[in-house]
Amino acid sequence: MTTDSAIQYDSVMKLALERGFYFPSCEVYGDAQAGFWEYGPSGVGLKNKFLQLWRRELVRRDGMLEIDGSQIMSKSVFEASGHLASFADPIVKCTKCGLTYRADKMISETADVEIPESAELEEFDDAIIKNHIKCQKCNGEFGSTKKFNMMFRVGIGPEGEEAYLRPETCQSIFVDFPRLFKTMRGKLPLGIAQVGKSFRNEISPRQSLLRLREFYQAEIEVFCNPQHLDKMNNFDEIQNTILHIQTGSDPDSMTCKEAVESGVVPNYFVAYYMGLLVEFYEKTGIDVEKSRFRKLGEKEKAFYAKVAFDFEVKTSVGWLELVACNYRSSYDLSSHAKKSKEKFEVMDGEEKVLPHVFEISMGIDRSLYTILEHSMIYDKEHERTVLSLKPYLSPIHVGVLSLVKKDGLREETDQIYQKIRRKYDAFLDHSGAIGRRYRRLDEAGAPLAITIDHQTLEDQTVTIRKRDSMEQERIKISEIDSILSEATSFP
Amino acid sequence: MTTDSAIQYDSVMKLALERGFYFPSCEVYGDAQAGFWEYGPSGVGLKNKFLQLWRRELVRRDGMLEIDGSQIMSKSVFEASGHLASFADPIVKCTKCGLTYRADKMISETADVEIPESAELEEFDDAIIKNHIKCQKCNGEFGSTKKFNMMFRVGIGPEGEEAYLRPETCQSIFVDFPRLFKTMRGKLPLGIAQVGKSFRNEISPRQSLLRLREFYQAEIEVFCNPQHLDKMNNFDEIQNTILHIQTGSDPDSMTCKEAVESGVVPNYFVAYYMGLLVEFYEKTGIDVEKSRFRKLGEKEKAFYAKVAFDFEVKTSVGWLELVACNYRSSYDLSSHAKKSKEKFEVMDGEEKVLPHVFEISMGIDRSLYTILEHSMIYDKEHERTVLSLKPYLSPIHVGVLSLVKKDGLREETDQIYQKIRRKYDAFLDHSGAIGRRYRRLDEAGAPLAITIDHQTLEDQTVTIRKRDSMEQERIKISEIDSILSEATSFP
Repeated sequence: MTTDSAIQYDSVMKLALERGFYFPSCEVYGDAQAGFWEYGPSGVGLKNKFLQLWRRELVRRDGMLEIDGSQIMSKSVFEASGHLASFADPIVKCTKCGLTYRADKMISETADVEIPESAELEEFDDAIIKNHIKCQKCNGEFGSTKKFNMMFRVGIGPEGEEAYLRPETCQSIFVDFPRLFKTMRGKLPLGIAQVGKSFRNEISPRQSLLRLREFYQAEIEVFCNPQHLDKMNNFDEIQNTILHIQTGSDPDSMTCKEAVESGVVPNYFVAYYMGLLVEFYEKTGIDVEKSRFRKLGEKEKAFYAKVAFDFEVKTSVGWLELVACNYRSSYDLSSHAKKSKEKFEVMDGEEKVLPHVFEISMGIDRSLYTILEHSMIYDKEHERTVLSLKPYLSPIHVGVLSLVKKDGLREETDQIYQKIRRKYDAFLDHSGAIGRRYRRLDEAGAPLAITIDHQTLEDQTVTIRKRDSMEQERIKISEIDSILSEATSFP
Repeated sequence: MTTDSAIQYDSVMKLALERGFYFPSCEVYGDAQAGFWEYGPSGVGLKNKFLQLWRRELVRRDGMLEIDGSQIMSKSVFEASGHLASFADPIVKCTKCGLTYRADKMISETADVEIPESAELEEFDDAIIKNHIKCQKCNGEFGSTKKFNMMFRVGIGPEGEEAYLRPETCQSIFVDFPRLFKTMRGKLPLGIAQVGKSFRNEISPRQSLLRLREFYQAEIEVFCNPQHLDKMNNFDEIQNTILHIQTGSDPDSMTCKEAVESGVVPNYFVAYYMGLLVEFYEKTGIDVEKSRFRKLGEKEKAFYAKVAFDFEVKTSVGWLELVACNYRSSYDLSSHAKKSKEKFEVMDGEEKVLPHVFEISMGIDRSLYTILEHSMIYDKEHERTVLSLKPYLSPIHVGVLSLVKKDGLREETDQIYQKIRRKYDAFLDHSGAIGRRYRRLDEAGAPLAITIDHQTLEDQTVTIRKRDSMEQERIKISEIDSILSEATSFP
């Protein structure tokens, strides 16, 4: 089929709204807050399958542990982690109309001056004065730049004890590490993973899933002995996997092995997980030829990171950061050890060691957006939009359609649906022109559709239609389970 | 095997801590708040599989839609839902030491007087005076009873716009209903489901997973035409399923069909979902012979419920409410329609109708606790604790053990593990006495263990051991996949 390659953000958004992938939270109310979105039935299906793949390709493949911790965490955690002191954005407020802006973004957009968000507050004030920047809404003067902590505070119990919604899932992994290592009989290197919501009170949330105030992360923290960063038993599994790494102005392509040997990646340990990550994303249907690991400069890195690579993918809205790979050294464990006075060292063979941490911090919402954009095709020849999702990620595995409702076809169709509905995500549809029903299934990403017609009643066969090729063939009802099983199982 | 039936809360707690099911949040800090717990690796495995079963047996079986909405929701939602005005507990504070108590619980424990939590505040004050109740800690006098709203408030953006962490997941289902019905081409009756965290600022959280401030719900809201509550197409699937229903002092056993015909359950619609629920719980391994649907009296029901049955299960800590089944009528949809001025009516055939709602609100954490308690067995004969989880719910499907590490057995074991690790939850273990490794797997609920020994190198066979019977037999390595697949697949 001939395709139009320029799928834009707006087309993805339209499809997402119409086919139940995602939509704004509380939208019936005028006061719906920016930065909060809901997953509809198609979005939940895609997300759950994305996470199943993540578990297969990262958590299980590497023998990691997965936990699920509280989202509300005690103040002490964030005193130790540094978030209470440092997890803040620079903001400026208009003295006339009261509108608040994020200082670095506002200055870069109005005066084309780049100041890193971690700069001293005076630098923002100076830039505003020097470039005569005024409020975009009312032309008023700005007050001086302040720090705004992005954590949401909550009060616990009748006395309102101070606590916070976690701004990253990994803090529970760090504070739980001593218990987990002991009870689960851990051995270094040990990966601990977590999927869940995190919360950041962004000044300017934007573009649906791309900058949310409440968002999903899938984080992996690999604990290792910093003396053994070149001992990776399974390195041969990924040594020939291609990485695109950008340390200067353009990305270079190299194998994981070459990345270490050339010194671009500091050791086998880090290169191994970068390789796993690329292999995972390849299976999501994202075009990894459009990906890069961008090495961050000193001012760009998060405050806890020693070395950092952002895994970014090219989309219609530019390069999108899907994963932050941070070498956090022993920053978090030593901070929590100091504050809590608990022991965080563990035995590695005969040696007592405070592990270092390499983090693979994945943004799920952005990943799902990118899968949608990279999977969406406009098929000019047949005038249809196709969401060519990998069959194992499709929210609907198969549509089950009656050609017409009468003559017993509805009942026959219902029976076939009943037989497969527990095992597969099947969508039963009796009404509307068959062509339009196929088009809707194409847009929802269903790889297969089964149609029951008059011939079915005679010879127990149905038509099976493939989304991508639009090929149709007749198969026996008794073959449906094995065909679906083969077509939709994980690689 | 002979067993000791009296498994108590404390034994479950000990196993949960030692085998990584759950443990307190932020426990390295002294100020860890009560009411927040984390799932460890075994708990996450059990929870994920429990939810897969829930999707198979309820969501997919009934063709429901599943969504995943924001946890932080706008103030308007809770003004309309009534939670801002009514979702409050009565509290009293000691005027001397400042300690706060939940009034109804404190009065019932100290004076054996039962006052429903929804009573007028004066009733609590009167009971305190009449029974001369003083602070249990310092013997001080109490101030007057107040209402304490149990929602956690958060402030959005730099101006701190008022919003709340949702106290129940279902509110997003209600506010999203118009969009979902339209875009997903809904037809009544339509079930919409959601799994996620809810938050309640309890005065007295207690007993680990049994009363949490941050907890998991799996809620289903079935939207129906109130005129068609006796038209249930699939009723014959569950008509003979046994329900234990308590309207007076003791539960009566009857089939779903008898429950409707005798008038104990108001209609086929409600009885159908009660039947699905029992069939689901039967497959979790909970002993449904120890369950009852208890019909709630006027004062016990939530403020939005017209008819309510609690699905309760008997445990060592008494009857535990796992599910609230509420007939919410059109309470929520009409409240949101009024406040938002949006249309919530939909077409049912030729008729325009504001749907009524039947809710199946499941507490996941309590359900998991009950599964653990009902699955735990002390096997006196062999002096071992066994967690006889259903194999499809076990966090570990199979242990993969080398008898000894030397002579190439470690490498052979690693190879077998590599082959199955993506598809199954496998636990690789090389060290310790084999008997102790089996015991640990028994406690974690792993239904199978595979042991690689010297004979494996000669004839490519391994020993497979079954958790419940402790039987061991030799099988070929090539048979492992099909044996595991059959033993661990969902029913």
